[in-house]
Amino acid sequence: MAAHWLFLGFLLLGFGGKTETRLSVKEKLNNEVVSSHRDLAPDFKEKYFKQVLDHFNYNSLGNGTFDQRYLITDQYWEKGNGPLFFYTGNEGDIWEFALNSGFISELAAAQGALLIFAEHRYYGKSLPFGKDSFNVPEVGLLTVEQALADYALMITDLKQELGAQKCPVIVFGGSYGGMLSVYMRIRYPNIVSGALAASAPILSTAGLGDSRQFFRDVTTDFEKFNPACREAVQGAFQKLSTLAQQEDYRRIQSAFSLCKPPSSPQDIHQLNGLLRNAFTMMAMMDYPYSTHFIGSMPAFPVKVACETMLNGTDLMSALRDTAGIVYNSTGQLTCYDLYSLYVECADPTGCGLGFDSKAWDYQACTEIELCYESNNVTDMFPPMTFTEQQREQYCGKRWGVVPRSGWLKTQFWGDDLSTASNIIFSNGDLDPWANGGIRKSLSRSLIAISIPEGAHHLDLRESNPADPESVIVARKMESEIIAEWVKAARKESS
Amino acid sequence: MAAHWLFLGFLLLGFGGKTETRLSVKEKLNNEVVSSHRDLAPDFKEKYFKQVLDHFNYNSLGNGTFDQRYLITDQYWEKGNGPLFFYTGNEGDIWEFALNSGFISELAAAQGALLIFAEHRYYGKSLPFGKDSFNVPEVGLLTVEQALADYALMITDLKQELGAQKCPVIVFGGSYGGMLSVYMRIRYPNIVSGALAASAPILSTAGLGDSRQFFRDVTTDFEKFNPACREAVQGAFQKLSTLAQQEDYRRIQSAFSLCKPPSSPQDIHQLNGLLRNAFTMMAMMDYPYSTHFIGSMPAFPVKVACETMLNGTDLMSALRDTAGIVYNSTGQLTCYDLYSLYVECADPTGCGLGFDSKAWDYQACTEIELCYESNNVTDMFPPMTFTEQQREQYCGKRWGVVPRSGWLKTQFWGDDLSTASNIIFSNGDLDPWANGGIRKSLSRSLIAISIPEGAHHLDLRESNPADPESVIVARKMESEIIAEWVKAARKESS
Repeated sequence: MAAHWLFLGFLLLGFGGKTETRLSVKEKLNNEVVSSHRDLAPDFKEKYFKQVLDHFNYNSLGNGTFDQRYLITDQYWEKGNGPLFFYTGNEGDIWEFALNSGFISELAAAQGALLIFAEHRYYGKSLPFGKDSFNVPEVGLLTVEQALADYALMITDLKQELGAQKCPVIVFGGSYGGMLSVYMRIRYPNIVSGALAASAPILSTAGLGDSRQFFRDVTTDFEKFNPACREAVQGAFQKLSTLAQQEDYRRIQSAFSLCKPPSSPQDIHQLNGLLRNAFTMMAMMDYPYSTHFIGSMPAFPVKVACETMLNGTDLMSALRDTAGIVYNSTGQLTCYDLYSLYVECADPTGCGLGFDSKAWDYQACTEIELCYESNNVTDMFPPMTFTEQQREQYCGKRWGVVPRSGWLKTQFWGDDLSTASNIIFSNGDLDPWANGGIRKSLSRSLIAISIPEGAHHLDLRESNPADPESVIVARKMESEIIAEWVKAARKESS
Repeated sequence: MAAHWLFLGFLLLGFGGKTETRLSVKEKLNNEVVSSHRDLAPDFKEKYFKQVLDHFNYNSLGNGTFDQRYLITDQYWEKGNGPLFFYTGNEGDIWEFALNSGFISELAAAQGALLIFAEHRYYGKSLPFGKDSFNVPEVGLLTVEQALADYALMITDLKQELGAQKCPVIVFGGSYGGMLSVYMRIRYPNIVSGALAASAPILSTAGLGDSRQFFRDVTTDFEKFNPACREAVQGAFQKLSTLAQQEDYRRIQSAFSLCKPPSSPQDIHQLNGLLRNAFTMMAMMDYPYSTHFIGSMPAFPVKVACETMLNGTDLMSALRDTAGIVYNSTGQLTCYDLYSLYVECADPTGCGLGFDSKAWDYQACTEIELCYESNNVTDMFPPMTFTEQQREQYCGKRWGVVPRSGWLKTQFWGDDLSTASNIIFSNGDLDPWANGGIRKSLSRSLIAISIPEGAHHLDLRESNPADPESVIVARKMESEIIAEWVKAARKESS
């Protein structure tokens, strides 16, 4: 859920010792790769909110405040009257989400809304303890509950400050951000009148459902494009496995263009993880036009991947080139470094690289449960488990924490949403996260929207000529429902 | 809200250097004063639950567990099927609440319920850090949110352990315990199907309403009995004030039977607080029979107080004797010690004495807002303010904390309960806390019940021949509504 976009800055820079530096999104704005965004992006002001460090302990080390970043624009706002559209920032630099959620801006323009994108604590520039934020115990203030309390307080205070006390608030979010939007609505309905939760896997991250679902659904994307694609991928991994068993590391290095030859089962495990992750990302980002949200991705990456798999001279080099769509989009890499391109963490779908990946790893080690496995039977990948036991072991060692299985379900209701209201759960059928979320409407105001041709929160992206009809329809529904919520909230408070 | 019952142990022992020791409630059970409870009390087992110390920080000092006490009886339970009735313990020893909430046991017997009374962290024997619990920073884990999470986890785990997974849960609470019941239902509707919140001042403790309401309503109780009563009290305080201005401390000592003569305006302030507190307690505990919940209280204490006030030889000694109803029920005191009988704290309605009073003071210094004032205009007491500024100053000095005004309203919705359901807000018209709560039904399932002749959560007490008709009617309504909730919850989950 997190891996993806973090690769961007990294890949743009290419390799060669610069792995510590990431381009800031503002710098990226000046980069031709993303210049197409520039004209469309709203005129956001970057601001900081004096935020309470620890909402849940008055005598902790967090007895103070930190600067939490947010982006705001009132260019569309019907001042004092139009609603407040608030993006509940998730695991990354808030500019990334603002620049890749153009639909929210379009909706703000259409409905006269004040628009805010809030950055999640411990991500981007919202580091409560600066570079010490990921030390123990400083990292302990990184929890879902703290993040929600941040948003509740920020909304309450900014409404006051901006003369927006009467303005209904609608929250938006994609992926983990969508989960936060759901949680904001169920925990703070006094503050939030409705939530659009795009691609929010609220069930699978709460330990509900089948641990095989995620990689099964990644596989389905490729299989649906062409059953031979799945077979080719599975065959390539099989060949790799055979060579590994023979400890023919030289041939593996050559076939996969590795900078160094693997020398242990651990290196092979790492290679398998890196390769599997490429498919995960292409499935999630299977948009009908090229994107620069999570690395540079071609249009229809699943199609490109399958064509690459099926047109290769041999299976293993085809697999290498397919992974290269993700890891070597610029073509500048001459070899792949196993441990800098992919970092294993408590999220088997990837944590990405950099500061933000540490934060996400911590969250996956505490509240967010992501014990997904591949098994080569229900999916096309090598068997790679990530059990609750493995998670406990890793997280204890890495962060000194004991994950509390079941806690997220207790805190945020799991699948028992019967008392909730005013939430849209949108999901794209191409998105491997989709079936970890709510796929069927639960009531008149808990509305599931399916986007058959949609990948990971496609609906939140700005309108594009290549958009399939299904996402256009979905956005229209979302727009109408939100307008209704705003109207009803206004009526109620008047 | 807290003061009251803590006086019991203290007063039973009388004075003379024994002020450090309190009778345990179990000891009290063997004491003739409370022996009438013995036959009626259900057969509770006292147990301990291994509770998470810090639900909101995986790397804090609270990275462990503590033993949380609870009382349980399955003597009425229709095993595996009957509901779970769960008392959300408040600011004190859980035995006190169990022994003074007989209605819940009666209801459990009638409806085949499993019955649990859970003790609030930092009270009674549920001290997370033993005698160090009230040190800084250890005390920091005392918050409403932690207490709610305790109950959520305890319910979830005990249901599993007891084979009660299918049993709907109804929470009960009085006063702050009633607030916790409301919060449980709005925060954890996945766990709790309904809440009976008796005398829960959810509005006034969230900073909503009029800071003069509380002592105005205390005054009203006495005034309603006889307008001359209010005049007499006001006259007595006036005389005291005049003597204090004249610095005639000897005469004050003599009139009020003080062990030591007052010697400063601070002592006079303390005396005023002590006297005002007696009226608060008698108004809250204005039951139609004698009780031993909060000290030993005669039947109809407001009536007794007013008769005492109006039949005295002079106003000041009448005021002394009226306060004696509370502070000297056994008649064994020969003089009053200003600073051991009453301790000023962040709750102007009193924090009581002992460990539990420290905990309540801390809560009033952090989340619970109790900035109530008397002013001698809308009430009969000397002007005594407790502003947000005074609170900040006191709490900073006492606990090193800065109260976060408005936080409880943000967290628990204040008066914006439109999305909540299945809560009974019962209030007695005699109770000065009543008008700080919900007095009018907000929807078909947010039901306000008024008990005209009821004092502080009278409805939760066991049936008594002296009960007024209004509380009998209220209990019947509560019983029927709860049975409906249980039925509906069972239907929903089947």
